Amino acid sequence: MAVATKQSLDELCINSIRFLAIDAVEKAKSGHPGLPMGAAPMAYVLWNRLMRFNPKNPQWFNRDRFVLSAGHGCMLQYALLHLTGYDSVTLDDIKQFRQWESKTPGHPENFMTPGVEVTTGPLGQGIANGVGLAIAEAHLAAKFNKKDCQLVDHYTYVILGDGCNMEGVSGEACSLAGHLGLGKLIALYDDNHISIDGGTEISFTEDVNKRFEAYGWHVQHVEGGNDDLDGIQKAIEAAKAVTDKPSFIKITTTIGYGSPKKAGTAGVHGAALGGDEVEATRKNLGWEYEPFVVPEEALKHFREAVERGASLEAEWNQTLATYKTKYSADAAEFERYTSGTLPEGWEKALPTYSPSDKALATRKNSELTLNALAPVIPELIGGSADLTHSNLTFLKVSESFLKGKYENRNLRFGVREHGMGAICNGIALHNSGLIPYGATFLVFTDYMRAAIRLSALSEAGSIWVMTHDSIALGEDGPTHQPVETVASLRAIPDLLVMRPADGNEVSGAYKVAIENRKRPTLIALTRQGLPNLAGSSIENAAKGAYVASDSEGTPDIILIGTGSEVSLCEEAAKELRGEGKKVRVVSMPCWKLFDEQDEAYRESVLPKSVTKRLAVEAGTSFGWGRYVGNESNTVCINSFGASAPGGVAMKKFGFTVENVVAKAKAL
Amino acid sequence: MAVATKQSLDELCINSIRFLAIDAVEKAKSGHPGLPMGAAPMAYVLWNRLMRFNPKNPQWFNRDRFVLSAGHGCMLQYALLHLTGYDSVTLDDIKQFRQWESKTPGHPENFMTPGVEVTTGPLGQGIANGVGLAIAEAHLAAKFNKKDCQLVDHYTYVILGDGCNMEGVSGEACSLAGHLGLGKLIALYDDNHISIDGGTEISFTEDVNKRFEAYGWHVQHVEGGNDDLDGIQKAIEAAKAVTDKPSFIKITTTIGYGSPKKAGTAGVHGAALGGDEVEATRKNLGWEYEPFVVPEEALKHFREAVERGASLEAEWNQTLATYKTKYSADAAEFERYTSGTLPEGWEKALPTYSPSDKALATRKNSELTLNALAPVIPELIGGSADLTHSNLTFLKVSESFLKGKYENRNLRFGVREHGMGAICNGIALHNSGLIPYGATFLVFTDYMRAAIRLSALSEAGSIWVMTHDSIALGEDGPTHQPVETVASLRAIPDLLVMRPADGNEVSGAYKVAIENRKRPTLIALTRQGLPNLAGSSIENAAKGAYVASDSEGTPDIILIGTGSEVSLCEEAAKELRGEGKKVRVVSMPCWKLFDEQDEAYRESVLPKSVTKRLAVEAGTSFGWGRYVGNESNTVCINSFGASAPGGVAMKKFGFTVENVVAKAKAL
Repeated sequence: MAVATKQSLDELCINSIRFLAIDAVEKAKSGHPGLPMGAAPMAYVLWNRLMRFNPKNPQWFNRDRFVLSAGHGCMLQYALLHLTGYDSVTLDDIKQFRQWESKTPGHPENFMTPGVEVTTGPLGQGIANGVGLAIAEAHLAAKFNKKDCQLVDHYTYVILGDGCNMEGVSGEACSLAGHLGLGKLIALYDDNHISIDGGTEISFTEDVNKRFEAYGWHVQHVEGGNDDLDGIQKAIEAAKAVTDKPSFIKITTTIGYGSPKKAGTAGVHGAALGGDEVEATRKNLGWEYEPFVVPEEALKHFREAVERGASLEAEWNQTLATYKTKYSADAAEFERYTSGTLPEGWEKALPTYSPSDKALATRKNSELTLNALAPVIPELIGGSADLTHSNLTFLKVSESFLKGKYENRNLRFGVREHGMGAICNGIALHNSGLIPYGATFLVFTDYMRAAIRLSALSEAGSIWVMTHDSIALGEDGPTHQPVETVASLRAIPDLLVMRPADGNEVSGAYKVAIENRKRPTLIALTRQGLPNLAGSSIENAAKGAYVASDSEGTPDIILIGTGSEVSLCEEAAKELRGEGKKVRVVSMPCWKLFDEQDEAYRESVLPKSVTKRLAVEAGTSFGWGRYVGNESNTVCINSFGASAPGGVAMKKFGFTVENVVAKAKAL
Repeated sequence: MAVATKQSLDELCINSIRFLAIDAVEKAKSGHPGLPMGAAPMAYVLWNRLMRFNPKNPQWFNRDRFVLSAGHGCMLQYALLHLTGYDSVTLDDIKQFRQWESKTPGHPENFMTPGVEVTTGPLGQGIANGVGLAIAEAHLAAKFNKKDCQLVDHYTYVILGDGCNMEGVSGEACSLAGHLGLGKLIALYDDNHISIDGGTEISFTEDVNKRFEAYGWHVQHVEGGNDDLDGIQKAIEAAKAVTDKPSFIKITTTIGYGSPKKAGTAGVHGAALGGDEVEATRKNLGWEYEPFVVPEEALKHFREAVERGASLEAEWNQTLATYKTKYSADAAEFERYTSGTLPEGWEKALPTYSPSDKALATRKNSELTLNALAPVIPELIGGSADLTHSNLTFLKVSESFLKGKYENRNLRFGVREHGMGAICNGIALHNSGLIPYGATFLVFTDYMRAAIRLSALSEAGSIWVMTHDSIALGEDGPTHQPVETVASLRAIPDLLVMRPADGNEVSGAYKVAIENRKRPTLIALTRQGLPNLAGSSIENAAKGAYVASDSEGTPDIILIGTGSEVSLCEEAAKELRGEGKKVRVVSMPCWKLFDEQDEAYRESVLPKSVTKRLAVEAGTSFGWGRYVGNESNTVCINSFGASAPGGVAMKKFGFTVENVVAKAKAL
């Protein structure tokens, strides 16, 4: 009888999840009921029996992280948040599912709903974020834990579906996770044999478990995902017991479980069941409650999470107190990290340069900056997608982050740009102060653009270090030469794109990047050497644009350059000034930051009265009309580049003093 | 003795490849000698003993396709092209490696060098293109071959490295290839344990062969890749014998084989060996020839490919002749396909609409168009990344392209956008007349942007069908709502981005897309219904922009809309005209096509004298200054969207008649 009662309570709880999802989707007439209905059992076992979290403090540091990588099933997560007692999702919020400004948007958004760790929906991102979360945990544990005091000790749980598993980004991140042996990453694969187009036999017949074995994961299969709660629990417990490998648990379920007509079909994936089928499902599952009504017994059981959570946090606070007593310096550092406070005076480490300093490639300035910051900002952690010696992103103060070497800070992403992007976002959204950076060639932002976009949307302050930023990279040719890339990145809302012109501007770009913990910064850097400008400074760069050099009085013309073309503008200006022209050179490392300055400052840099303006940038003219009135007032490149030595390519495409001077005169 | 002589000749040939690569890189002081040195044996076996091609006719239809997915090793391919007798790569061309306008650019470019099938370099693209090439072959074989006449019968060979295997795009495409059982796709994995950052133990320790087994491939391992030529040959022959699975042959090699100091190190991957090491390598490999000198005996042996190729083509011509006799109608169709000739009068099938026709979502118009074209353009083949019923891309005249059902035309890509992109490019670059299309939600072009860029660069006329093209998609929220997406795609050179406003414009977009066989077209389509406009037509849409409606005389203001916002402009215009204003509405489905019109036409649509202009587009204002003078003269959205019903989202973000009218009046 005891078992029967317990079963019944379990069923009540699981069906509470299912019907909150069914009813919310039905009310919104929009959404995805299929996954919540099928994955409710595994989610219930996880949240009710195993996961450690505190509903009343969603930001409790040592909570287990939960990621719904199959983000379309977000009603599963909203139901869990509500049922377990988070204040962020009330029953009213659930009734507002997918409505304007609700806490329950169409996919999980960490910036809208406390308790949601990362923003998912674009498939594969969540599991890759999960790898980032697990990396963050492993790093902090290696850094802070003591033999007698495990301050950092949580799991990262991910629920993912067939869609996530088909996406390349998940393969990249999971291959790396296996390589790194991230033992506290546990993925539950909702194996429901259905994707949007129909059965997985249409397009997805690979042996997923075998693939994860090949990646080096610990792999299990729970066949009875619809009802074998103990089986699910045991599998998760077994996964926790394996500490040197991430775990992948395939759990076979029925999508839309309980719906007489739609269970096990693609029809239940992404559309409301419809009134009749909702009724039929109620009947089929013996659910006698009205829409949005949760049986008291179930709610009470779920809400035990509140007390459980409070005591888990209290217990951890005890650990923290002990830690503070025994290891006060480390504790202070830990609290600095987790409060998101930067070390005082860190910015003094930023290198500065004067024109007499040697001309360096800005990627080299970036290396100097990263290595100047690395000792003073120990929370800086990152690396390159297998272009370390080209991107120059290695932190010499540390070694490579490898299996069992989690205290190190140089991440070795391999040739996995997209995975790198999502992993960095996961590290940032661990919200423990870590500042992640990821690097590749600028043109390969195309491989990771979805992750870059999500860094901006989800307020992950990732830093994107992108070298080889124009056709001037030369011989590798048009496949490697960005042309439209900078413009296409500038178009992304809330992403700061900086293209520094010299050493000081690189330092300025990093100042911006480090300080913006909720807004990602992308830094575009040259392969080729650039002289240090007289007018540049960290402060100027941080304003987005400034007067780099000027003639006396109102200028006849303003030359606006970015990055490697500022020094070209300076040379052209010198020649034009020699001919008696009054020329201002404006360096504009960041459009967005300049646009955010007050009008007086903007007017002081680009006075409205001076309409003769020429923008010079080794990229597309797309969008430059904003500052020069007309896109034709540019020296830019609007075709693909070509393979040739960098200097030759630049010359052939018109990035010469002569051409800039001629264009300026023509104005 | 006979064996010894043969061995020696093989070695001479292999070293000829190696030293052409070494010398070319050395002369250019730039490039990647490591791969050619290590992969020369497998490439030699493939090109000399097994691959069927005709150097004097690189476009011979039935040639085996060769893809160097590890494109940085392009000197391997240039050496092979030269040695086997292609006219496209002379010794002088090799001496011009990586120089301006040379036939030997820094990565293989199909549009520069006959004999190069696809453009590679961005890792993982080539193997995914290879899947597309194999799909094209399988489809044409299923369509044209007769029991007694195998007109279409070639292999697709790919050499790929660790980098390609780490990239998600390769995983996506190879999972699909295994699912489809593409037996004539054979991949040689240059397993050299080195990536740019160092040994693969840094970041890549998965069991690659096991992963490919999990994908459903036939998998082998040749351990002696540096010298076991017969082993390589046998493995390829075994791969050919397996007809129901693609084959993956891991061939263990030494990167930079022969270099005493650099072999087996990352140092030989991407930099010239340096004079001393070149000398040392010559000595080590017993190579007594001057730079760029190929031993006569080796050249003679390689050049047997010319005669072999001529006779292979002659033999096939015989098959074609027989086919023509026996199956004249099919033969005519085959020749139409392979000559790239569209069926006469195909464009008559394009649907047209009048304002009295029902308002449809343009994705629905797209479905009608695709299905109107499908019967008359049988070479149209494509599908969706698991959003078939949302993208509405299913061709009802056919069934799903599945294993053993290769005659069908509906490709089921699964949730693999990036793989889809590269596969479509491979189908297009099979150059057999097939017209591929790939579909997903517009925002997920971010997942496949590298492939879209390459479609433009490599002149693959792929068609990208992208639905749910603005915040008006509604409830799915900002992760799914494009904002900057259209602008960022417009910035890509040589990509035609069309955002049609109604049924006629959709037909116009497809007319452009079908006709542009060397320039890809991306069509952005709505989720929501749109009225049919009075002024729209196929011809007008193909001009990029046109006057959709007008007042008499010189307009006071021009409203420029695209896609769903053209009808909004029309409504606003009606209101403004009611107040006595003279208003022109311009529909601008494609910036690039409009920019390509002659000046008189452009002036007739957007007269310079009318400076009051307002652009209305549910996307970023980025770049609109080009047509309206100032980006602020827009009704656009420059932030991320939000989850809410589509109509609500549009209203909240200002896409209302009231707001457009108010903005217009403010001007």
